[in-house]
Amino acid sequence: MSAKAEIGVSGLATMGRNLARNLARHGHVVAVHNRSAQRMRDLVEHFSDEGAFIGAESAQEFVDSLERPRRIVLMVPAGAATDAVIDEFVPLLEQGDVVIDAGNAHFLDTRRREKALSEKGLNFVGMGVSGGEEGALNGPSIMPGGPKEAYDALGPLLEDISAKVDGEPCCTHIGADGAGHFVKMVHNGIEYADMQLIAEAYDLLRKGLGMEPSAIAETFRQWNSGRLDSYLMEISSEVLDHVDADTGKPFVDVVADEAEQKGTGRWTVQGALELGVPVTGIGEAVFARSLSGHRDLRDAARGLPGPAGVLEGAGAEGFAEDIEQALYASKIVAYAQGFNQIQAGADEYDWSIDLGAVASIWRGGCIIRARFLDEITAAYRRDPALPTLLTDTSFSEALAGAQDSWRRVVAVAAQLAIPAPGFSTALAYYDALRASRLPAALIQGQRDFFGAHTYRRTDREGTFHTRWAEEGRPQEER
Amino acid sequence: MSAKAEIGVSGLATMGRNLARNLARHGHVVAVHNRSAQRMRDLVEHFSDEGAFIGAESAQEFVDSLERPRRIVLMVPAGAATDAVIDEFVPLLEQGDVVIDAGNAHFLDTRRREKALSEKGLNFVGMGVSGGEEGALNGPSIMPGGPKEAYDALGPLLEDISAKVDGEPCCTHIGADGAGHFVKMVHNGIEYADMQLIAEAYDLLRKGLGMEPSAIAETFRQWNSGRLDSYLMEISSEVLDHVDADTGKPFVDVVADEAEQKGTGRWTVQGALELGVPVTGIGEAVFARSLSGHRDLRDAARGLPGPAGVLEGAGAEGFAEDIEQALYASKIVAYAQGFNQIQAGADEYDWSIDLGAVASIWRGGCIIRARFLDEITAAYRRDPALPTLLTDTSFSEALAGAQDSWRRVVAVAAQLAIPAPGFSTALAYYDALRASRLPAALIQGQRDFFGAHTYRRTDREGTFHTRWAEEGRPQEER
Repeated sequence: MSAKAEIGVSGLATMGRNLARNLARHGHVVAVHNRSAQRMRDLVEHFSDEGAFIGAESAQEFVDSLERPRRIVLMVPAGAATDAVIDEFVPLLEQGDVVIDAGNAHFLDTRRREKALSEKGLNFVGMGVSGGEEGALNGPSIMPGGPKEAYDALGPLLEDISAKVDGEPCCTHIGADGAGHFVKMVHNGIEYADMQLIAEAYDLLRKGLGMEPSAIAETFRQWNSGRLDSYLMEISSEVLDHVDADTGKPFVDVVADEAEQKGTGRWTVQGALELGVPVTGIGEAVFARSLSGHRDLRDAARGLPGPAGVLEGAGAEGFAEDIEQALYASKIVAYAQGFNQIQAGADEYDWSIDLGAVASIWRGGCIIRARFLDEITAAYRRDPALPTLLTDTSFSEALAGAQDSWRRVVAVAAQLAIPAPGFSTALAYYDALRASRLPAALIQGQRDFFGAHTYRRTDREGTFHTRWAEEGRPQEER
Repeated sequence: MSAKAEIGVSGLATMGRNLARNLARHGHVVAVHNRSAQRMRDLVEHFSDEGAFIGAESAQEFVDSLERPRRIVLMVPAGAATDAVIDEFVPLLEQGDVVIDAGNAHFLDTRRREKALSEKGLNFVGMGVSGGEEGALNGPSIMPGGPKEAYDALGPLLEDISAKVDGEPCCTHIGADGAGHFVKMVHNGIEYADMQLIAEAYDLLRKGLGMEPSAIAETFRQWNSGRLDSYLMEISSEVLDHVDADTGKPFVDVVADEAEQKGTGRWTVQGALELGVPVTGIGEAVFARSLSGHRDLRDAARGLPGPAGVLEGAGAEGFAEDIEQALYASKIVAYAQGFNQIQAGADEYDWSIDLGAVASIWRGGCIIRARFLDEITAAYRRDPALPTLLTDTSFSEALAGAQDSWRRVVAVAAQLAIPAPGFSTALAYYDALRASRLPAALIQGQRDFFGAHTYRRTDREGTFHTRWAEEGRPQEER
């Protein structure tokens, strides 16, 4: 073998195979390797007309087939499997080679691996890839972390195969070590929130106005031509329009209403709790999925009382438009919370993350791609230190315009017994953030009472404790 | 030294000192030890009139002063400090000795330590202690885990010093290894939810009806004489009644409204996410505290628009009673979620936990002590396999009676811009659990569309995937 490959992909299940094909289609020579070689042979056999593959039967052959510095993309399951593959390759590599983990690793694992490999003189890149199988093949959104020098060597290739929006690649260097996987994790968390909000909008239209799925699909299509234009909105229309061929019923009515999850939403909330960032929209979305799956509890609770019925006549007027407003406002809150989490992660782990660039590379290729992200990019371009998206002019104006409708939707949901935890937690967040006083003061009083946890005051510096049992005066104690 | 001590306490900061004094006051001979011996000497000097202490200057002296099998209570900070103390004592101990960690360890650490010590023939008891400094001295609620044999040797002593309700000790063997610390963690999580709900009730009375803190204190006192009778309600009245001596203002108005937290609430939610149990009440409570502390975001968001104003005239009628109903209903939900988490933990870690007994030992000594817990004990006595507290007759009837008011409160909170995330998430949980269909079906459709994640159907077994791009018929794929 004389010609060397520019890049290699090890792990050729659908995601890895599609990423390799994407690279080859863009004119790059791609070495391919899989633990069981048959997958590699299948790929070379079926897709060699798409580009230049070098099939490697073994790890050594794979490594030998690559140009120096080597660029090795690993696409294997997160966790022990990733560690095993890294351990297999490391002894075969040389100073300056780049190992890219394109799986869904937890960012703390990525930090650990980056540290271990950098000590051996290797570059390790934890890389978030969004867009699923289709994105991997035709252009994903790519979130690579790791050392800047590694990105210099790798970036052009990645930008080449990423999605493009307005001619810009949906790929940028996110930050050091685990930054890429961290941002990918929050992306997925936001995706959970976005899906939950759309699901609530559907439920409100269905149960609150008695609309059929096909009519809701049409409403969603209309919304999708406005500020809510997004991939998730588009596919929601398609799902709602679909009729089950076997039963003739709306597809959405034959699907079991128990949502599953693969864990990155949960990681996002757990991480946000660790960082002290309230991501209530993602939290409620993750919990809503868990709840839906507790069939035993749901069966037991079926008989609990509550009102039923739909809005009618004058009461129904404008309610669909109100839901559009509530959905947009709640979406702003969910994204604002997610971007705050990214900033908090950057602060905690000493990453320098360009939030505007993050929004920009999410505009294409990934599941949450949406027109909306242009606004977020613009907001952070206007003010890179924006404390919350809610206060950027474009969003604060939208919120101001939406809030009457939003309040009505949350109120009606409560009155009609339509669960809307995503909409209502977003509104509570909005109102709590803007409140001049919060009842957290009472909580501080309770804590000082039962646990002598002390409190601060509004009118002077210091930490205070009240001797409650003695009904005494507040006394500065610590 | 001839007489030996029945039990020893190492770590004599306030909690450890008070626990030692509590033991001594109950007639037990207590060995006391502290890394810096001065604390030990102070204790012996000041409190020897309360009972019999044997002061030990060193770990060896401490160990030598104890009857066999030795019972050593460690009251040191959770984490590395606990490991360090265990490592110091282990070489000095003998087969069958019992090491009790009474600190706030994470239950996974307790599982790890229990495993390590049992391999050395030692008994390790991870013990939750609730009630703060005052409880430690006068009778806490005690939640010991670990091997049953260790409880046989230790239980009588612990039951002796625990709080008593109706003559019953607030102490029982919770279950193996980390069960005690797990249950203590969920206790604290529920405490967060309870405090948040009371804070929201206060905020609604204050902002919704324009009531002054002293009037709200009086309302809370009335509620405290009914089904909401609880320690937290009682101290909330006292806090709200308190007037700051320096300024003459209500105390609650001079306290900074930024709630702090020490981590167990966060652990509870993180653990619930791991177990897939929706504890939305605790989640919102933890996030509400985080939010209150983000002064930068709050300052930035201050100017966002929203309505202000209070209910007046006929609109205000009965609203305080509605809040009482909403508070009680939301409290039922928060506790139901917490008990579900305990059951899920028991299932996951193979603990046999008597939920009725847990509710029973929380009736005294701890922060969430309340009349309400009698009802929970009774519910689990009626049906130990109750899937959710919501469906026990006593609670389902209360919920049925409360739900109109509860809906009104959530609706008014939205309309008046008073954040009530705890009330509204509890109502959403109630309505979601009783819903015959959830929009989770749409989420499953979205997931199948963008990620080929498959779905199940309502009308037959199996896992299905739809070829969306081809607009084809649902086709069984896996």
